[in-house]
Amino acid sequence: MSELMNRQIVLKSRPHGEPTTENFALVETAMRQPGEGEVLRRTIYLSLDPYMRGRMSDGPSYASPAALNEAMPGGTVSKVVYSRNPAFAEGDFVLGYDGWQEYGLSDGQELRTLDPVLAPISYALGVMGMPGMTAYFALLDIGKPKEGETVVVSAAAGAVGSIVGQIAKIKGCRAVGLAGTDEKCRVVTEDLGFDACINYKTQELDSALKQTCPNGIDIYYDNVAGPILAAVLGHINLGARIPLVGLISQYNATTPPIGPNLVALLIKRAQIRGFLVTDCMHRYAEFASEMGTWLRTRKLRYRESIVDGLENSPTAFMGLFTGENTGKLLVRVSQDPTV
Amino acid sequence: MSELMNRQIVLKSRPHGEPTTENFALVETAMRQPGEGEVLRRTIYLSLDPYMRGRMSDGPSYASPAALNEAMPGGTVSKVVYSRNPAFAEGDFVLGYDGWQEYGLSDGQELRTLDPVLAPISYALGVMGMPGMTAYFALLDIGKPKEGETVVVSAAAGAVGSIVGQIAKIKGCRAVGLAGTDEKCRVVTEDLGFDACINYKTQELDSALKQTCPNGIDIYYDNVAGPILAAVLGHINLGARIPLVGLISQYNATTPPIGPNLVALLIKRAQIRGFLVTDCMHRYAEFASEMGTWLRTRKLRYRESIVDGLENSPTAFMGLFTGENTGKLLVRVSQDPTV
Repeated sequence: MSELMNRQIVLKSRPHGEPTTENFALVETAMRQPGEGEVLRRTIYLSLDPYMRGRMSDGPSYASPAALNEAMPGGTVSKVVYSRNPAFAEGDFVLGYDGWQEYGLSDGQELRTLDPVLAPISYALGVMGMPGMTAYFALLDIGKPKEGETVVVSAAAGAVGSIVGQIAKIKGCRAVGLAGTDEKCRVVTEDLGFDACINYKTQELDSALKQTCPNGIDIYYDNVAGPILAAVLGHINLGARIPLVGLISQYNATTPPIGPNLVALLIKRAQIRGFLVTDCMHRYAEFASEMGTWLRTRKLRYRESIVDGLENSPTAFMGLFTGENTGKLLVRVSQDPTV
Repeated sequence: MSELMNRQIVLKSRPHGEPTTENFALVETAMRQPGEGEVLRRTIYLSLDPYMRGRMSDGPSYASPAALNEAMPGGTVSKVVYSRNPAFAEGDFVLGYDGWQEYGLSDGQELRTLDPVLAPISYALGVMGMPGMTAYFALLDIGKPKEGETVVVSAAAGAVGSIVGQIAKIKGCRAVGLAGTDEKCRVVTEDLGFDACINYKTQELDSALKQTCPNGIDIYYDNVAGPILAAVLGHINLGARIPLVGLISQYNATTPPIGPNLVALLIKRAQIRGFLVTDCMHRYAEFASEMGTWLRTRKLRYRESIVDGLENSPTAFMGLFTGENTGKLLVRVSQDPTV
């Protein structure tokens, strides 16, 4: 195999507060030759997700920090371009965790082969992957939605929130989203079928929640924490369930922000419970079967927001925190031959 | 029946912040004559509990506010002095909710007859009553203690906390209390058998929790919320359970204080869940059987702090918020003929 140059976006420095382009660097390195049993693949799609902000810091978290001067971590869908591992053939599509770079090389133990006939290969990074599982398990296991209940979800136009509201609808609930632009709210209600959507940047939250949730809130699927959680707590019903799945509102904070007063939890005998999708990985089959059915029968719609070019990853990533994307954010690192 | 004068402590005005003696008034009114089917009783013990602070305000809560110029509400153990109800005989001891007054009169539907042979009658207001049930159900149902786990409880010398730690020990857990004086800490460890107790007023909480909970915290039984909850969150283990049972630290606040940052819930997949004992009243028998056994076999010890005289109720009540009492706080309104 001739020498291959690999472009990478590496973590150059740890951000203090909001990440900037200064924290990233585009570097080009020569790939080593694949050894016996190894498989080389070329990245087609790179997933960009809010959790990556945590990896950029070296404070305590549920995962170890990204290393400086190495490719930023991230989920990828790739095409096998060279294989010395009998489990993979050239041309196979695989789900992996190769990070922000053009090529990945390993013994392939962490890879999962994708069938492009079953679903678009990019779905493995979204609705059929980690964001879809996050929406599915946190809503169903912690939220336990019952017909007729009201489910509120923050970041409703995002990769996870957009799925949460649709599952809520499938379960017979009223689904109310929170999003940061009128256009996102339009997508959430008109395209995704939520019953209502609140633009939390322009609407007064308290009265908007009262108006859109006339019977109170039974489940609040929280992707953001912060002031939205505090406002929601004023409207929860007896026995409300609050899966806490993300704290997007504070990922860029330089000091931990304060939290909401919890008296409503006591008055309403409600619960807040943290959720990490990694705890549910062993239940992938159960998830994939039901989610696959919903997609095939068009009970659930899925939106992607695709940015072209590895070099644009830092800017696209930063947009996650300023509300630039609608749907799952992906970077197309190389052409997708299946579409 | 000759005319009977009833002394009452009434709510004269709603407190702004900490209650003061100005908010209460001692009044004397004539009792009306008992009607057909009614039962008149004389209060022996009045229970004083932190939740009463909530009743003094007219903000939103889980119970309606106490009425101005009426007797403050509260649990009582009384002796039947006159009965026109065949279900009660003169001399019977009854548990009721007669409030801060010398006499109660009603059709008796809400009363429960007590057997002074089974347990001291005052226990019905403490370890065998609402505080005991609060300790028992919130710890067992939400906390779900498993052998070898570490249970931390705030207000550990109080009516509820002192029982929580002892149940934790019975369940094979390490029990660590938080209390506000060295003397309370001594009681908690030496008399009640907790493994450790932190004086949160004199010790640096973070290092004290680290030292007394070397394996982290699996259950935090929270009676107080506020800064102690925030500190505890820094030491919780994966899957920690936090029954939120009281918010003593903020009952006197004039504006709702901020809460803790909740990122630890996500990282540790932990939960905070509000608890109100009223939801468990139908499970009294289950509780009474097990708690009664623990008391009889001396696996669990119970302490009372008794103040004499109805007129001293306001001062004793205010002491709940400044940490005056150790164990269950009661007012002896009239002599207990069983002791």
